Order: sequence, then structure tokens, then C-alpha cells
Amino acid sequence: MAKKLTSRTEDYSKWYNELVVNADLAEASGVRGCMVIKPYGYAIWEKMQAELDRKFKETGHENAYFPLFIPKSYFSKEASHVDGFAKECAVVTHYRLKNAEDGSGVVVDENAKLEEELIVRPTSETIIWDTYRKWVQSYRDLPILVNQWANVVRWEMRTRLFLRTAEFLWQEGHTAHATKMEAIAEAEQMLDVYADFAEDFMAVPVVKGVKSANERFAGALETYCIEALMQDGKALQAGTSHFLGQNFAKAFDVKFATKEGKQEHVWATSWGVSTRLMGALVMTHSDDNGLVLPPNLAPYQVVIVPIYRGEDQLEEISLKAKEIKKELQKAGVTVKFDGRDTHKPGWKFNEYELKGVPLRIAIGPRDLENGTVELARRDTLTKELMLMEGLATYVSNKLEEIQQNLFDKATKYRSENTHQVNTWDEFVDVIENKGGFVEAHWDGTSETEEEIKNRTKATIRCIPLNAKSEEGACILTGAPSKQRVLFAKAY
Amino acid sequence: MAKKLTSRTEDYSKWYNELVVNADLAEASGVRGCMVIKPYGYAIWEKMQAELDRKFKETGHENAYFPLFIPKSYFSKEASHVDGFAKECAVVTHYRLKNAEDGSGVVVDENAKLEEELIVRPTSETIIWDTYRKWVQSYRDLPILVNQWANVVRWEMRTRLFLRTAEFLWQEGHTAHATKMEAIAEAEQMLDVYADFAEDFMAVPVVKGVKSANERFAGALETYCIEALMQDGKALQAGTSHFLGQNFAKAFDVKFATKEGKQEHVWATSWGVSTRLMGALVMTHSDDNGLVLPPNLAPYQVVIVPIYRGEDQLEEISLKAKEIKKELQKAGVTVKFDGRDTHKPGWKFNEYELKGVPLRIAIGPRDLENGTVELARRDTLTKELMLMEGLATYVSNKLEEIQQNLFDKATKYRSENTHQVNTWDEFVDVIENKGGFVEAHWDGTSETEEEIKNRTKATIRCIPLNAKSEEGACILTGAPSKQRVLFAKAY
Repeated sequence: MAKKLTSRTEDYSKWYNELVVNADLAEASGVRGCMVIKPYGYAIWEKMQAELDRKFKETGHENAYFPLFIPKSYFSKEASHVDGFAKECAVVTHYRLKNAEDGSGVVVDENAKLEEELIVRPTSETIIWDTYRKWVQSYRDLPILVNQWANVVRWEMRTRLFLRTAEFLWQEGHTAHATKMEAIAEAEQMLDVYADFAEDFMAVPVVKGVKSANERFAGALETYCIEALMQDGKALQAGTSHFLGQNFAKAFDVKFATKEGKQEHVWATSWGVSTRLMGALVMTHSDDNGLVLPPNLAPYQVVIVPIYRGEDQLEEISLKAKEIKKELQKAGVTVKFDGRDTHKPGWKFNEYELKGVPLRIAIGPRDLENGTVELARRDTLTKELMLMEGLATYVSNKLEEIQQNLFDKATKYRSENTHQVNTWDEFVDVIENKGGFVEAHWDGTSETEEEIKNRTKATIRCIPLNAKSEEGACILTGAPSKQRVLFAKAY
Repeated sequence: MAKKLTSRTEDYSKWYNELVVNADLAEASGVRGCMVIKPYGYAIWEKMQAELDRKFKETGHENAYFPLFIPKSYFSKEASHVDGFAKECAVVTHYRLKNAEDGSGVVVDENAKLEEELIVRPTSETIIWDTYRKWVQSYRDLPILVNQWANVVRWEMRTRLFLRTAEFLWQEGHTAHATKMEAIAEAEQMLDVYADFAEDFMAVPVVKGVKSANERFAGALETYCIEALMQDGKALQAGTSHFLGQNFAKAFDVKFATKEGKQEHVWATSWGVSTRLMGALVMTHSDDNGLVLPPNLAPYQVVIVPIYRGEDQLEEISLKAKEIKKELQKAGVTVKFDGRDTHKPGWKFNEYELKGVPLRIAIGPRDLENGTVELARRDTLTKELMLMEGLATYVSNKLEEIQQNLFDKATKYRSENTHQVNTWDEFVDVIENKGGFVEAHWDGTSETEEEIKNRTKATIRCIPLNAKSEEGACILTGAPSKQRVLFAKAY
């Protein structure tokens, strides 16, 4: 049986790590900074992928696949990209091993050195725009609406499961357009896709906004983002969508003939979400007993556990349980029946609580007599006795209620932890003692943002898209400001 | 418009490459040996993935994800694996770039050298068995039935799109069992899954067999395989399933407590298919006009092309075409309507022929009057005039007929190109002048197999599972043999 988790108040970061490992989501591997995503965790990621992929296709995108490796020289082609992008990358220098002469195993064959080093992709703008040059001649070839599901590598020094790992899984959309307007509309559309996915599917409320210049993606003219608030009062960037202007088209010489026969550079966007979403999911809903899953993302929404003494009772209850399972499945509910006789009911209760299964059904001998089951909700930890008759409909509705409840709860938490401040002292007080989102005036300069970060570790998470204009004074410099921006400490 | 392909008789290999590129399946990238899988090609791969994934889950498997990188020392742990496995691997030695001092771009930061080099996975047995050690304590933890969809890298010197590329996409199943019997049954089950997929879904007939010792996977006790015959008379290995015995469990110290409390090593299998299947698909069915797709794998099974003069006609025909599209979709058929006014009908006809769309519907103004359409079959290149009424049912049935026809045609080709020979001269004659599969007696030794390969380039593709026992004499040595094995030149 899983041992009790460290509580959130005791040590939030420890709680998170224990939960991720004990709930069978992921674990560290023998390779520094690289994680193993375990089957239960991967099943949740697959559900995220399936829904996102559906949304991408619905909005006209197709999937493709580009090389894992990028020649080093490609990184030097787009000036702001190479300057701004982190240089912590895995570098391939050789292409062969050989047997060690002393028979101790394999060593790198020094004769097999690459002429030009290859970088394991940290993101694929360069290799993709090098390809698009061949795909685009005329306005007839536009737009290109392509997405890639892939692994990428960024050599992070301090890693945490899902939140920051050297290798992670993600999708990266890369689109090419004939006009600036169309590219901006695409970047905004994909931000909406991400926000809808986070809220409707993950039950994670997000703020849509744009990044300040300091936090913008290297090579982008505008970075749109969605920001979520975690239970420890820190913000987590859950997805970004970039309007890249003509930067990459110019760097890789991608031009098209307009209808009028003129040659113009192509306009670009890129957008991505990653397995980091798994971290957001865990930290938004879970509690000290373990994971809490929104029904839309649960590998199985209901688990049925038999309570029995002896084989005869188990057999009798199993028959009934399988009937119920079939009925629930007919109603579109995913169900696991755990009839293992190698583990006790109490062990199973803890296990499925830890794994965040939204609803648990227990059936004992008395339930068989009375035609009842015990139904336990993971989100509220409440139990009720229900008649077997009409159970499927009740369960379906209950799952919808849980999905909504998780979203409402997270939204309430966020609004309770979003503070408007007007002075520097207030700002420091809230950031240091309360955490959460802080709405404050800012003078719009990179220097001020940098200074605030240095003093408090808080950064501008975004300039919210829906913020009302409001006259104010910068909390640090007092210079005039026309709208509040969103500050927080962030993951 | 796509230019005409080189014909198969003229230059088979050139035909293949032109087809793969022109039909928008894949193309070479700026990275040596790495391909770009284009959206149309990737859509076919996605259909393969979806069906295989469904079959894996139906047989009780779950997906997971393991690191891209494997520490070099892991490769030295399983002796036969390190000896036998190709050493052409991408080696990561550094983890940081930096700006060149002369401002010319980025260079590798020599201060950021890894203590131990990392190998980009060529296959994942070692890293996965290193992980399974943590997952397995007792018989209760077995079996582990896990699959991974991933990219792998093998530094091939001579590469060909899909057939042999430095990076390719695949799935690799890795299972752990309490008994030898169970592991063998698993390896055999997965071979059947692959064979059924190839035949029922790809319409590619395959021979199931086991590899001779020479051709076995490094570290396996038995390698099961499916072998297909291409149109140029060469064989293509389409999938393998390995019974690994306790080799990896011993190398990585993976033991479990039996019910009786004894400590035993775990039994293993691994099995995989890759984007190589795309090559098998192309080379089994396609013709000099381009790709021919079995309906089960076609991104769209039907394309509708309007034949018109002027905008008014286009509009009128489009209305009808969209009605037909809806009706077909209701019948479960995937349909594309190509109403673009930037390309002529003739161009479109060629394009969809090149792309292998199973059925083409053309609608002109006279069809509107008569309530007819022209229906063209890609596999037989035949056309017929059909009434619009009842079209959906007709098309559904026709697609099934095409799927079956492709399989029958390929099976007929294979049986016409499978030869039984009894003497060395016959063997050499068939291998050199006819090609195809050759059923011949072999004395069972590695030396003989090696000698035959050196003299003719033919290898034993497999020892067929369903071969009848038959007394005979080895074609090379004359030594006694109890069954024929399958020889061919191979990709």
C-alpha cells in the first residue's frame, strides 16, 4: 500500500514529487533530468493529446514529422532566435561506438566525428522553415497549417517531473501565411483553442494575455499565453502561441509569388503545449490524499471494488459488478472492475484515491441483498448509498457535476488569490506573504520589469487580453500606466 | 502538375523515390539520412498507428514513455546485445552551445562536456529493463505489458526514404513475464497481431516465421518475423517479435518473488514495427502512375472533382457535390471535395491518381442533368457511369472490393514469384534471373547460410511457421534437412 503523502502545507514541493511518483504518473530515470512517463500518467497524456489533436484538425491543421536533429549552423540564421534562445542543448558530435580494446564494453569511436555537430531539437522553427522554403512558391501553396507531436530536449539544470525536464513531449504547430492579418488571427485562434482545452477539458481556469517583451519567445513579435494559478500561489504558463512576423521566412528565404506576381516573404506562427500540462493538472486539483482527476481526463472514470469474504461471495459480487460495468459502459462511462484477490478492499480504496479516480463504487454482500451500492466521490470525499437501478444515468450526471465542480473550485481559488495593489509596499507584501496573481500598474519598460523581478522574484505573467483600460501609476516608478498587468512568482 | 514518374521496369529504385516524393509522402531533409514525413504521408502513418494501437490495447497493453537518451554504459551490460547490435549510433557528448567570439553564430561550449556520453536510443531494451527493476518485486507485479511510440536513431550510411533512414518512427513493445511459456505465447501473439494488421489492413500478404540464428535480434533467443514480397522480387521484413529469455533480466538484475517465495529472473519479449511499413505499402500496391492505397489506409477514400466552365457551373456542381459528400460520410466513407478554381480537372485527376485515392468521382454539367457521376477506380484504372441514387451503398461496397482486390492481387503476385528449388544451380538461376521467394532445403548451419549469402546475396528470410516437414538435402552442402526455408534477396 502507498504510504501517506507529505501534506501540502508541510512541504508543497515534496508533496508534488511524492504524488507524481506514488500515483504512477512518472518517475526519474537513470538519465539525468529525463523522466519515465508511466502507463497511468501516459494514459492521461493520451487523453490530452486526443482532444487537442481533434481540436487542431477541426481548425484545419494536419500533422507531419520533422527531423530530431538540427544542424548547428541553422541556429545562427535567425539573429534574435539565436541570441534569445537558451543554449542548453544536447549536442551530437559522433555517430559510432566501438568495442573497447580492453573488452570492458563500448567506447565512442573517435574516427566517427561529424563534420558539423547536430543539435537535438529544443524547438523546430529552424528545421521547419528550412523545409517550408521547398514547399512554398506561390500564394496557392499557402496557408501551411502543420502540427507536429514530438519529443524535444532542453538541458535544464534543475529539473522537476513534468514541470521542467531535459526531455519532454509536446506538440508544436508551425503555420505559414500570405498576410500579416491572417498570421495574427491564427496565433489568436490557437490561443483560444488552448484556453478552451484547459478550461473545458482540464477544468483549469486560465488568463489569456500577451507576454511583455522580456518574456517573449526568441524570434517572436508577439507571444500570446495562457496562465494558470497553482495551489501554492505560483503561476504556471500552460501554453504559448507566437506571432513570428516574417523573421523566420527572411532567415530561411521563404518567399511566395502573390496573385499579382510580386515576391513577398511569408508570415509565420508557432504554438505549443507540452507534458508540463500534467504538472498543471496535478497542482490545480489534487489534495493531501493524492491526485484528483477531472472525469474528462481520467483513464477510467469509475472503479468498482468488491467487498467480500471468501471465494463464493467474490464470485457472486463479481457477476453483479460486471453487469453494472456493462451498463455504465453503455452510458459512455469508462470503468475498471478490480476483482483482484491479491489486495484487500482497504488497500484498493487508498490506491484509487491516490490515483484520483473520480467515482468509486463498492459492492458488498448486503448491497446484493438490498440492490444498492456505495458511491464515493473523489473530489469531495463524500459517500452515498445508491440503488443499483438507474445507476448509469446517475453516474453520468455525477461525472459532469464533478467536472464542473473542479472548474468552479479552481476558479474560486484563483479569484480569492488574485489581488489588486496600488503601491510598492502592498505589492511586496502580497508577493511575499500571500502569493497568487497580483494586478498592478506598470510603466511598460523592460528595465522596471527587470528591477521588480530582481527585488521580488515576481514577473509579469501576462498583459491580460480582457483587461479594462484604467489610468494608474507604476507601482515601482510611479510613471503613468493605462492598464493593470498580471504579476506572480512562476514555475 | 506532377511530372510523369520513371517506370518500374526502367528503374525500380528511381520509381520508388520519385513516387514517395511526388505523392507527398516524405522527402529528404537538410540533415543527412533524416526524412521529413509530409502531411499526406503522415496521415497514412496515423491510420496505421491508430489501428495498431487499438490492437495492442485490445490485447491488454498500455503505452508509456522512456527516455530518448541511454547512458553508454547500459549498452555494455547485456553481452550478446552489445556484440551483435550495430554500433552506428548518434552520440551526445556536450550539453551547451555558446556564441562564437567572432560573432559568426553558435559553437559548442567545450566546458560543457558530459561525464558519460549519452546514446540516442537505437532501441530501448536497456533503458526499459533498467526501469523494470524498480517496477518488479513480486509475481503480483507481473506481467508488465507496455508499448512505446517513439523515434529511434541508427546511423545508416546508405539511406532510402522510409526503408532505411537514420531517424525513424516506430513502436516498441517490451513485456515482462513470470514464466517462459507466457513470454513465448506473448511473442507469438504479437506476431499474429502484426500479420493480421499487414494482411487485413495494409492488404499486404506476409509469411510468418522465425529467423535463423544469423538473422536473430542481438539478445534474443528467438526472433519471429513477418516477411513480405515487393514488386521487384525482393523481400521486406515488415515486423519482428522477439523472445528474449532472461537475458535482459539477468543483465539488469530484474527478479521477482514467486508465489512460493523463491527469487527468479523475469522473462521478456520485445516487438516492433516502424515507418518502414510505409515503404512496404508503397512497393506492394503502387504502379507507374503513382501510389495505390488500400481504402483502410487512405487519408480520404473518395475525392470529388467538379468539371465545369465558369463560376455559375462550379457553384451548381459544388452544391450537388457537397450533398454527395454528406451522404458518403453518413455511410462511413471519408471524402474530399476539391472545388479549387486554381487548378484544372485534368491536373486534379493526375494528382489524385499519383496520391492513390481509391475512388474518384467526377461531376460535370451533363451529370447534373442526368443524375449521374463518373466513378473511377484507382486500382484497376477503370471508369463507370453511375446513378447518383444509391451511390453511397455502391461506394461502400466498392471500397471493400478494392481492399480485397489489392490483397488478392498481391497474394497472386507472391505465389507466382515463389519458387521451390532443389539444386544449387536452380537456386542461383532463380535468385539471379527471377527473384522472389525461394523455398529450399538448408542444412541448418550458420556457415552454410553465410556462404550462400556471400555467393548470391540471398539470405534466409525466415523458417516459415507453417512449413510442412519434408526430407531433403541442403542445396549447398547436400547435408540432410527436414524442412524448406525461405530465401530471398532483401531490403
